[in-house]
Amino acid sequence: MAFTTKATIRSFGGKLVKLSHASTSTGTDMAVNVFLPPQALAGAKVPVLLYLSGLTCTPDNCSEKGFFQHAAARRGLAIVYPDTSPRGLNLPGERDAWDFGEAASFYLDATQPPFAGKYNMESYLTRELPAALFADAEFGAFFAGPDALAITGHSMGGHGALSLYLKHPGLFRSVSAFAPIANPSRCPWGEKAFAGYLGGPDREAWKQHDSTELLSRCAKGTDVRMLVDVGTADNFYKQGQLLPESLEKAAKDAGVEGFELRYQDGYDHSYYFMASFADDHVNHAAKHLGL
Amino acid sequence: MAFTTKATIRSFGGKLVKLSHASTSTGTDMAVNVFLPPQALAGAKVPVLLYLSGLTCTPDNCSEKGFFQHAAARRGLAIVYPDTSPRGLNLPGERDAWDFGEAASFYLDATQPPFAGKYNMESYLTRELPAALFADAEFGAFFAGPDALAITGHSMGGHGALSLYLKHPGLFRSVSAFAPIANPSRCPWGEKAFAGYLGGPDREAWKQHDSTELLSRCAKGTDVRMLVDVGTADNFYKQGQLLPESLEKAAKDAGVEGFELRYQDGYDHSYYFMASFADDHVNHAAKHLGL
Repeated sequence: MAFTTKATIRSFGGKLVKLSHASTSTGTDMAVNVFLPPQALAGAKVPVLLYLSGLTCTPDNCSEKGFFQHAAARRGLAIVYPDTSPRGLNLPGERDAWDFGEAASFYLDATQPPFAGKYNMESYLTRELPAALFADAEFGAFFAGPDALAITGHSMGGHGALSLYLKHPGLFRSVSAFAPIANPSRCPWGEKAFAGYLGGPDREAWKQHDSTELLSRCAKGTDVRMLVDVGTADNFYKQGQLLPESLEKAAKDAGVEGFELRYQDGYDHSYYFMASFADDHVNHAAKHLGL
Repeated sequence: MAFTTKATIRSFGGKLVKLSHASTSTGTDMAVNVFLPPQALAGAKVPVLLYLSGLTCTPDNCSEKGFFQHAAARRGLAIVYPDTSPRGLNLPGERDAWDFGEAASFYLDATQPPFAGKYNMESYLTRELPAALFADAEFGAFFAGPDALAITGHSMGGHGALSLYLKHPGLFRSVSAFAPIANPSRCPWGEKAFAGYLGGPDREAWKQHDSTELLSRCAKGTDVRMLVDVGTADNFYKQGQLLPESLEKAAKDAGVEGFELRYQDGYDHSYYFMASFADDHVNHAAKHLGL
C-alpha cells in the first residue's frame, strides 16, 4: 500500500519523512519514520538500517534522541524507524500495562487470542514493510533494495533485532543492539510477553523468539556480525531483564565468529547511552553493507 | 550556593549532571544541566559553552535532542544548560501564555511588576551562575574559569545569547545562535515580552536588549565572532518573529568583522535543525576558546 507523508523534516543534510501506511499484517495503519541521507537525495540508491525501538516508544523517540542520522548522513544509509506495535485495535487488555500490548509487541507474530492475527510484527518487519518501501512509487527509488538491509534496536527492540536476524538468515547483512532483552524466556518482561502472545508454559515455542536460544543453535564458525552494547549502570540490566551474559555464553559455547559484546562503564538504559554509541552501530552496519 | 545533584548520566564519554541551586538573583531554586566532557573527568580544566534554550524549554530538551555533547566531547569543553526562567513564583499572569512568563524570561532583568526583582535572568546568567559554578567545591575544579566562557542559544535563547554577548563585552569569547529572535523590539514575541518585563512604549529601554540595536552600535571593524544559522523553512522566520535580515543589515551597516549568517535550505525551527549544525556551533566556540 502507498505511504502517506505526515511530515518532512530536514536533518543532517538529508530528510526525515514521517509516514503512515495501511498494513495487511496488522490490519491497522502503521506509522514509520524514514531518514533519507543526502546521498539518496542526490540520486544514490542507499542501503537501509532498520531500527527497532524499546517499550513505550513511537518512531519519533529515536528519530529525535538517538543520533543515528549523524553517522547515517556521513556513511550514506537510510534509517527506517517502525512503530513498536499496531495501535488502535482496542483489544481487551491491550493498554493495561506499559510492558505488554500496545507499544510492547516484542516484534513477533502472536498466536494467542486476542492478539493472534493482528500482532503480526515479525511478518510486518521482515516481509511487508521492506517490500512496501522498496516498491513504493515515491520512495522506492531511494533504496538499494532487499540485498542491502541491516538491523539494530534498543531494549525490546534489541531483542527484536537479534531474534529477527537470527530467525531469518540472509535477510539482514548485520545486526547490532543496545541493551537488548537478550534471553526473554528467562526474564520477567519476556516471560510476561511470551506467555501473553505465544501462550505458556510451552517454552519450546518461546525458544523460537529467544536470541540466546537461537544463537546457541548457530553452527560453529558462523560469522554472526553482531555488535551489542550494554551499560553497566543500566537498572534493567542489574534487575536481570537483559541477561547479555546468557547471549555471550551462547556465542562462546556455539563457537560463532564476529560476536562482540561491550559493557560500557557507567552508562544507563536511556537515549543518552544510545546517542553516545550510535555512530559505532551505524558504522558496524555500514561496513557489512559494503559502504 | 552549593549545587544539589539530581542525576548523573554518562554521555559521549563524559557526564551530564542535572543540578539545582538556590539563586539569589531570582529567589528561587534554579535547575541547570552541565555536561562535563571526558577531558574534564580526566583532570583538564575545560572552557564552558553556555547554551540558552527557547520558549517552553527546560534544561533537558537540548541535553536530550541538541547533540552538543557530541562535539563538546571531542573538543573538550563543558556545556551549561540553564533553565528558561525562574519557576514556582506563582506571580499573577506568569503562566497565562506559553510565550511570556514562566519558561519565557527573555533572559533580561525585568523592571516591571510583578516580575521586577525576581525575573533577573541577565544577572543570573552573566554573574551568579558562572561564578557559582567556578567557585563550587564539587564542580569548580573542572572549569578553566571566567576567561574561558562562550555562549550560544536557540530562538528566545538565540536572542539571549546575542544580546548578553553584546551587552557584556569581554564576558564571552564568542557567540552563536540558532534561529534567534534577532530584533525583538520589532516582532510580536519580543514586543509582548519587552512590554511586560520592561514596560512600554519606551522603546529606548527595549533597545538595550535588542541584538540588532546593540550590534548596530558596535565600532567599525569590531571582530564580533558571531555565527548565526536560520532555516529557510522555519515558520517563525517566515512569520517575522526572527528577523535575521535586520541583524545582518546592522552588521553590514556597522562594518563589523567576524559576522556569519547562514540560511540553511529547507530546515525548520526544531531540534532536528539544531542537531544538524550543533557540531559547527561547538567548533565555532572551541576555536575562539583556543581549543
